[in-house]
Amino acid sequence: MSHYDLVVIGTGSGNSLVDHRFAGWRTALVEKGTFGGTCLNVGCIPTKMYVHTADLAVAPAAGARLGVDAELRGVRWREVRDRVFGRIDPIARDGRAYRLAHEDNAGLTVYEGQGRFTGHKELTISFPDAGGSGAPGRGEETVTADKFVLAAGSRPVAPDIPGLAESGYHTSDTVMRIDELPRSMVILGSGFVAAEFAHVFASFGVQVTVIARSGALLRAEDADISTRFTELAAQRFDVRLRRTAERARRTGSGIALDLTGPAGTETVEGELLLVATGRRSNSDLLDVAATGVTTTDGGRVSVDPQQRTSVPGIYALGDLSSPYELKHVANHEARVVQHNLLHPDQPVAADHRYVPHAVFTSPQIAAVGLTEREARERGVRFVSATAEYAGIAYGWAMEDTTGFAKLLADPSTGLLLGAHIIGPQAATLIQPLIQAMNFGLDARSMARGQLWIHPAMPELVENALLALPLDA
Amino acid sequence: MSHYDLVVIGTGSGNSLVDHRFAGWRTALVEKGTFGGTCLNVGCIPTKMYVHTADLAVAPAAGARLGVDAELRGVRWREVRDRVFGRIDPIARDGRAYRLAHEDNAGLTVYEGQGRFTGHKELTISFPDAGGSGAPGRGEETVTADKFVLAAGSRPVAPDIPGLAESGYHTSDTVMRIDELPRSMVILGSGFVAAEFAHVFASFGVQVTVIARSGALLRAEDADISTRFTELAAQRFDVRLRRTAERARRTGSGIALDLTGPAGTETVEGELLLVATGRRSNSDLLDVAATGVTTTDGGRVSVDPQQRTSVPGIYALGDLSSPYELKHVANHEARVVQHNLLHPDQPVAADHRYVPHAVFTSPQIAAVGLTEREARERGVRFVSATAEYAGIAYGWAMEDTTGFAKLLADPSTGLLLGAHIIGPQAATLIQPLIQAMNFGLDARSMARGQLWIHPAMPELVENALLALPLDA
Repeated sequence: MSHYDLVVIGTGSGNSLVDHRFAGWRTALVEKGTFGGTCLNVGCIPTKMYVHTADLAVAPAAGARLGVDAELRGVRWREVRDRVFGRIDPIARDGRAYRLAHEDNAGLTVYEGQGRFTGHKELTISFPDAGGSGAPGRGEETVTADKFVLAAGSRPVAPDIPGLAESGYHTSDTVMRIDELPRSMVILGSGFVAAEFAHVFASFGVQVTVIARSGALLRAEDADISTRFTELAAQRFDVRLRRTAERARRTGSGIALDLTGPAGTETVEGELLLVATGRRSNSDLLDVAATGVTTTDGGRVSVDPQQRTSVPGIYALGDLSSPYELKHVANHEARVVQHNLLHPDQPVAADHRYVPHAVFTSPQIAAVGLTEREARERGVRFVSATAEYAGIAYGWAMEDTTGFAKLLADPSTGLLLGAHIIGPQAATLIQPLIQAMNFGLDARSMARGQLWIHPAMPELVENALLALPLDA
Repeated sequence: MSHYDLVVIGTGSGNSLVDHRFAGWRTALVEKGTFGGTCLNVGCIPTKMYVHTADLAVAPAAGARLGVDAELRGVRWREVRDRVFGRIDPIARDGRAYRLAHEDNAGLTVYEGQGRFTGHKELTISFPDAGGSGAPGRGEETVTADKFVLAAGSRPVAPDIPGLAESGYHTSDTVMRIDELPRSMVILGSGFVAAEFAHVFASFGVQVTVIARSGALLRAEDADISTRFTELAAQRFDVRLRRTAERARRTGSGIALDLTGPAGTETVEGELLLVATGRRSNSDLLDVAATGVTTTDGGRVSVDPQQRTSVPGIYALGDLSSPYELKHVANHEARVVQHNLLHPDQPVAADHRYVPHAVFTSPQIAAVGLTEREARERGVRFVSATAEYAGIAYGWAMEDTTGFAKLLADPSTGLLLGAHIIGPQAATLIQPLIQAMNFGLDARSMARGQLWIHPAMPELVENALLALPLDA
């Protein structure tokens, strides 16, 4: 039984952790699937490649009312897909090859199998059956280590709907690699995964139906954003709100979902069903309880601010332990864990105060900090202001009539509490606001202490800042 | 002869100056042309409306290599033009109506004519001949005032080329209102006006030839930006560098320019000639010398940091006095002048330390602070770093291979000295860097003291910050 100084489970954000500073350590890396993790292989990166392609596909339609006559004649799906994965798959392969063969990794052992804890700091790795020959192959191997980093991520989960498991549905893990665009697609779910894929496939000409349990899409966003997005989505997709899926079944041409909703029962059909109802931590696959690591609601590994689990020497990061499910959070946590492994006497804490996120749908959405509802629930004193894209010259140029930025601030200090943007370039526009929140810059100083290029998009932010009804 | 407490000449940035806080003042506003100034009527705002339309017109071509088959069938020029000016002209009209008739402006007199100084703090306004009837009309009127704000802007100028004046050329003042797109256009000039219109008209299908006296376009930008832009421009336009225009003449189908250059003499022809070789301050039209106001090189009115001219009580702002020729600078100066008029005992200075600008061409360009050449000339100790769009996931999505961000910083403090971006969303991406420079945020703190949404465009900025080879 091999013993290591450090075993890292998962090659997403965990993969960047072991670098030259661990040269004296005996280390191992455990990966059950493809190197690079969710973001690279089935998450943020390929989706954004599709989203940008979708944005180009809808440009002709946007041009017509501005006097530009262009026509979308088609999207070469297989070429788009092969371009996306022709870019990504080699990165995953190279990442694996680097760890397996590069001299930098002389002290590192790679285990390509599913790790699960079988005792205190004891991990048993099951290797996939090699080629299905029936030969035992490497079978299983058990290792121990002084320190573990748990970075095994999360996976899509499907709700318990009769017939669903047998229906041949897709998730975000599989839908980007299909061979042909379907004519129609039913998306079960109303969060960011649903919103992004609805935009992508609708832009490519697929008839999209979105099924939401609640009364709005993107319910995690500020209510004003969620409401606006839901209105706009209903203009592009067949949006069914307040529906419960009772049963799934295959039809001659695809899949049908029987729904109940405010108007009774109904059935929606599509050639393809995409289930985008959420993800769960892979803590169960790791059987973290066997090493004494505790989990919280929904099965996430519990960590303290220093990313330490309940077992000394075992750290966790990313989707396995984080409620954010965001790559930039996982990367930040990986840097924290790396530091804390190297400097155990001077541990640092992860900074989760101002975690931004974006939804790359159409219009684009980005946010950081509190929603208005959260501010009310916490009893925080706040003022808010909204500025519209239609109020800035670049918004006139775009003829944008639906986008806006909404800010929340402490009226006495002017410090920003939350920022929410829906509209073009939202994920770029929000960065100065993230920066202001992190460095304690108040709204008025931010607005007037710098120049805003006229007539550029950040004037939206300037206007929202100036509109805040602060006390002084 | 009327006497005023305050006379403001020019209704661009000057127009916003007299507000409710001047209620007790006897004020006058002098405007020789259209209310709203250069930016609104013939400058940044309409050009950006055209630029966004141009961006949509080139989207089909950009889509092809990403698997999106779209075709540009045409641009309805007159509709684009009428949409642009249908939006802008009413704003100018409403601005005029507000000043002429609104109760807010009861104490304000509007003179619609050309003002010129005819003595110390004595301004004579010439009114245009009403309807050409030969009747004297109002003729001229002379006013005096305790305080003046000179905000009469600048105008395009053409070089002294034989035949040019008779050739019927266009400038930025006129080219946006033409009735038909020409088949071909020659643009004389290589600055931002030339770069923006070349993009607009080429996107609309016009054959564009750009004539530059020097060896590169956009020579005011950092040399790396200028070089990259010149390379890319040469792929879209017929770019002729190091050419001197010797003579202009009309031809059967348009205008010909005889040039001399490295390979001898040559002639370029186009249906339309756009002269974009620069602007000059309108100080000569105001005859500022007659009231004792001094000017600097190129005829700009000299001002101190408080925007005060050489004559007590006379302020100047915007293109009339500023080398920047930027609306956001003029607006900032207008706020400074407004404050200094209202609080003469507590004057504030304009802040010209970190003046950003953008060029809305393709690719987009934005910059703030020192270029590398300026840093060298000033003997500033600096390090620099460049990050490519091709190095961020969103750049992969865009298949961008030409864009980059270049940063200059003080290696010992990490404070940013300059930022230069060429690529998509450059004018938005630069804002956090402007903010960092103004609020003294060093590069390393900026990079690691906030989260950068993955995979969003600001990761370009994050990468450039992290690449700076700082001392510590």
